[in-house]
Amino acid sequence: MGLDAEHRRMVTPAASHERRFHERLGAAHPILLAPMAGSGGVALAAGAMAGGAIGALPAALLSPDDLRGQYADLRARASGSINLNFFCHRIGPAPDETAWHDLLAPFYAEHEIGPPDIAPPLRAPFDEAMAAVIEDLRPALVSFHFGLPDDALLRRVQATGALVIASATTVAEARWLAARGVDGVIAQGWEAGGHTGHFLGGDRAAAMGLFALLPQVVDAVDVPVIAAGGIADGRGIAAAMMLGASAVQIGTAYLACPESLISAPHRAALASDGTERTLFTNLFTGGMARGIPNRLIEALGPVRGEVPPFPYGATALARLRAADPAGFGQLWAGQGAPLVRPMPARALTERLAADTLALLGGTGAGWPA
Amino acid sequence: MGLDAEHRRMVTPAASHERRFHERLGAAHPILLAPMAGSGGVALAAGAMAGGAIGALPAALLSPDDLRGQYADLRARASGSINLNFFCHRIGPAPDETAWHDLLAPFYAEHEIGPPDIAPPLRAPFDEAMAAVIEDLRPALVSFHFGLPDDALLRRVQATGALVIASATTVAEARWLAARGVDGVIAQGWEAGGHTGHFLGGDRAAAMGLFALLPQVVDAVDVPVIAAGGIADGRGIAAAMMLGASAVQIGTAYLACPESLISAPHRAALASDGTERTLFTNLFTGGMARGIPNRLIEALGPVRGEVPPFPYGATALARLRAADPAGFGQLWAGQGAPLVRPMPARALTERLAADTLALLGGTGAGWPA
Repeated sequence: MGLDAEHRRMVTPAASHERRFHERLGAAHPILLAPMAGSGGVALAAGAMAGGAIGALPAALLSPDDLRGQYADLRARASGSINLNFFCHRIGPAPDETAWHDLLAPFYAEHEIGPPDIAPPLRAPFDEAMAAVIEDLRPALVSFHFGLPDDALLRRVQATGALVIASATTVAEARWLAARGVDGVIAQGWEAGGHTGHFLGGDRAAAMGLFALLPQVVDAVDVPVIAAGGIADGRGIAAAMMLGASAVQIGTAYLACPESLISAPHRAALASDGTERTLFTNLFTGGMARGIPNRLIEALGPVRGEVPPFPYGATALARLRAADPAGFGQLWAGQGAPLVRPMPARALTERLAADTLALLGGTGAGWPA
Repeated sequence: MGLDAEHRRMVTPAASHERRFHERLGAAHPILLAPMAGSGGVALAAGAMAGGAIGALPAALLSPDDLRGQYADLRARASGSINLNFFCHRIGPAPDETAWHDLLAPFYAEHEIGPPDIAPPLRAPFDEAMAAVIEDLRPALVSFHFGLPDDALLRRVQATGALVIASATTVAEARWLAARGVDGVIAQGWEAGGHTGHFLGGDRAAAMGLFALLPQVVDAVDVPVIAAGGIADGRGIAAAMMLGASAVQIGTAYLACPESLISAPHRAALASDGTERTLFTNLFTGGMARGIPNRLIEALGPVRGEVPPFPYGATALARLRAADPAGFGQLWAGQGAPLVRPMPARALTERLAADTLALLGGTGAGWPA
């Protein structure tokens, strides 16, 4: 791209493809509730939608029937666009968990329990059964984490007319997604809480902060870009718009809403000074995810080679987490967590939108008219 | 701070202390050229100042006499505010470098050289001699990296009337600096190239991206905040203003200017795809700094325990760096490097300012009238 074209693009963030994207999004504000498997759900989505955001149901931990049920509940409670979110991880052969169980042995002994006798169901990747659910429900958006499903499955989703979006943590991942025909790329910065969507391999040490990632993804792809990671108030949304985002996806700020399904210790941690120090850990699932350190992380260090790969890593901790969710449960949070003030999802959404518009003032950059 | 006060602060970034700060900065644009020891200098500063930025001379590698000479040169070539930058590291006892020399032995053998016979001068922390230079020269700004000098030295600098600013990489560091009376805090995000200013200890894994760090520092201190790290074009400056910055400090974009003093391999690396993968390394000085991987990093891994602590770590590589600057020289760059287009410093500054103002449009947020 020549300097002139580049310059034009830089100072005119609201391009025509973006206006079409906003029209198709069908929400008052370009704010997407992050799905947050295990913590989001019908009540949180209904609140966010009532405030003008795009709702989301995380389907990674649901059966097809549970997803149908939740979708019907949400549809009855809220109008507006709904995003159904799925994981696209690959599941390898069952690993030998001996070394990991040995590391956990002192904690098992303390609680007089052991690893589960019967392995609980693993987080399942998107499959034909879920494609059939989408064909029935016809949600406005479908989002994928950890890459995309195989081409045949992806084409079935696209054929329903859903906008398909997916997470990229590098410019290379954004190009990969755009080449496969997504309608939007979620640029997920290193600040984001929970599991990184990183899927193309390469060096974790080269992960990118949102401030650098976002404009580079905007320059690299010809589809709208949704900013995620570290955005927790109107300042963050306005900044993302300046960097070229067409919309934002917000997780941690919604996690603190009373409608979320997090544990009481997780809620307490989000209201504590612990939010000033979040870090990536693989201890809870085998995948790298950002959260607030707790006893397990302090005892073992945040990243251990003994943990079985995602999604197997979640199994061995199930009983310990039930016995002591503060010490052994994941306390996911992004680096924006200290900015968060708990309030109902509708009020949060309305405040995010009002604060953003006050900052953007006359520019209206990136904001649907 | 109550919600109402917080809300007011969030939507009115241009507070009165900020206007006074801008008046005292005495530059057309709230853009600070990053000092960049070893790579900045008189020509780069003169170009940036001609474009309306605040110039900087990095003094960490200079003798007091060299600094006086460069300051006189710059004063003769450019009008406007000049920032003199110093390091405030502590130097421990000379370490045993045997393990590090052993690791480097194959490279020494290949180039038929060894460690320096006589240790070159170490990077020196700010001291009484430099305080005397400041008392003579009376620069508009003095900035510190790796904390602050001892109270007595700091008071001498403040007594000259210079604005004192210093780098913070965490909210705790920002509070520490503000409590010691700095006039501004540089919020240095994890995206920044070169040495992190991190100085209060704690967990490097909890380092913060600028998107999350900046608004939290703005909320935590009552002095103006200067954003640094990953900002390389007008979009980044406008975004920093939305997050509450009073000014920005830009390094990597100026590093690519023809006036910078970087090596030819460094310049070539900045123009290459290698900029898409920068990472932190301690190999070149013993301190953690972000750069583009080269042969030494690929061979040893970016972070090794054998490297002597900063600033001793720079010594053993001196001859290898001279023999092969591409393979053994530091190629500092921030995560914004792929956004950079080489052009003279004056033109770069003018373009940064014009692009920012075009984006901010009617808001004027954070921009001096």
